[in-house]
Amino acid sequence: MEPGSQAVDYSTVCEWNNKKVRRLRDALVGEEPLQIQLGKRPLSVTMRTPGNDLELAAGLLFTEGIIQSAKDLVSFQDCGVSRPDPNVLKIKLRNPRTLNSKPAKRNFLANSSCGLCGKTFIEDCILHGIKRPNPRFRMDPEVLCTLPETLRAGQVLFGQTGGLHAAALFEPSGKLIAVREDVGRHNAVDKLIGWALLQGRIPLSGCALLASGRGGFEIIQKSLVAGIPLLASVSAASSLAVQLARECGLTLVGFLRSRRFVCYCGEERLGLGASPK
Amino acid sequence: MEPGSQAVDYSTVCEWNNKKVRRLRDALVGEEPLQIQLGKRPLSVTMRTPGNDLELAAGLLFTEGIIQSAKDLVSFQDCGVSRPDPNVLKIKLRNPRTLNSKPAKRNFLANSSCGLCGKTFIEDCILHGIKRPNPRFRMDPEVLCTLPETLRAGQVLFGQTGGLHAAALFEPSGKLIAVREDVGRHNAVDKLIGWALLQGRIPLSGCALLASGRGGFEIIQKSLVAGIPLLASVSAASSLAVQLARECGLTLVGFLRSRRFVCYCGEERLGLGASPK
Repeated sequence: MEPGSQAVDYSTVCEWNNKKVRRLRDALVGEEPLQIQLGKRPLSVTMRTPGNDLELAAGLLFTEGIIQSAKDLVSFQDCGVSRPDPNVLKIKLRNPRTLNSKPAKRNFLANSSCGLCGKTFIEDCILHGIKRPNPRFRMDPEVLCTLPETLRAGQVLFGQTGGLHAAALFEPSGKLIAVREDVGRHNAVDKLIGWALLQGRIPLSGCALLASGRGGFEIIQKSLVAGIPLLASVSAASSLAVQLARECGLTLVGFLRSRRFVCYCGEERLGLGASPK
Repeated sequence: MEPGSQAVDYSTVCEWNNKKVRRLRDALVGEEPLQIQLGKRPLSVTMRTPGNDLELAAGLLFTEGIIQSAKDLVSFQDCGVSRPDPNVLKIKLRNPRTLNSKPAKRNFLANSSCGLCGKTFIEDCILHGIKRPNPRFRMDPEVLCTLPETLRAGQVLFGQTGGLHAAALFEPSGKLIAVREDVGRHNAVDKLIGWALLQGRIPLSGCALLASGRGGFEIIQKSLVAGIPLLASVSAASSLAVQLARECGLTLVGFLRSRRFVCYCGEERLGLGASPK
């Protein structure tokens, strides 16, 4: 097996099942580094599942506040089949100077010399123009409970490999709008939001986002930047994630499994009354 | 609820369970940024669960090749109860110049201007002195199957919050040596390896590592740097992870659940014959 820029690779593995041993051909989720360059300047290297790289880059630049809309992207150089290196993506910004003059975001730079705490991160999010998402968005709890099964049915790669994170957008009716998969859960969300950005669908004020994995601070932040009013995950949320969601008016749901979930804040969008303070 | 530097926070949440709604007090896993400074130079900011910060920093510096042993650390300044900012950790290296002269590691820097692919990452690992782990290590498959339950019993925070990743070291007999938890799965592994480094237990040539979450490239790399011969996870491994494990002679196990697992390579350590090529 040679690693390549493919979403799925195949390999012979050894299965042990209650003392029975057999060889089988297994599908493995692809993982390769992606370097994003702004002009000639390398910005970041991310381990990702190859595929939807433009969306990944667009989503990352947007949710990190480096671009404000798809119009800020002048071109993706060398992309598509003509990219000489499939793991390098060169991007040209309309106004490259804005990058240097903007406050450093924590994911790219670690140059803050002042004190550091979750509260300053939250204040930073609010200062940088995160708006309260659509207060009129509503979703029926019964519909919410159907989302994980719909997501699972839409996960093409997971079905083959059993090893990817996913993020999906849904209409209030529970209809699936789009799904993206990646070895990294942040990448899956970036690909999905990048797709929406390139499609001109931002803000996503009429959509719910379902993400596999945990509801951490960065996933909440990305959702808020994209204007998403409801974020659900099948797992737990962190303390800082709940704090940010509360301060910014996002509906945050965790442990969404079968016919049970926990709503950390914003339950009025689910018709469950006002948030506890 | 105010975010703080605690491993667990408490919050009132709303539970929906098959149409029944109730308020309950829930334990949330703590998440806060940690900035690691080398001297006065900020190195990185990581979102982590507060606690075991020294181990996290030591493990990160070691597995990224910035230090080779605990002796390279002269001091942890301002740490412990006297740290003025619990989210900043200042570290002094014995020979700070080595940091600048060493090749850039991808996690910290994105300055590579040459081509980028998984294969160069693997070559980089081998070039930087990753040794083949202990070929004499053995573990019985029946013992291997008991590790997830032992890990689960040792996860103090998960039991409270249901929302953390974990990593644990085991003896060949299946006896638990140490367990660490964090919102980030890489952090859990760094804390565990950092603990071992500070305890003088590196290389971990007599230990198996069990990690929650997926077996990605970076987890394999960290295990190899620490000299661990067997890495198991309850989920899938990526293509690049399997490639690195094969080239470096690590035993890699995935989907370790109940009485079944998949061994991607190095199955001779489990008494299952030689690896398929």
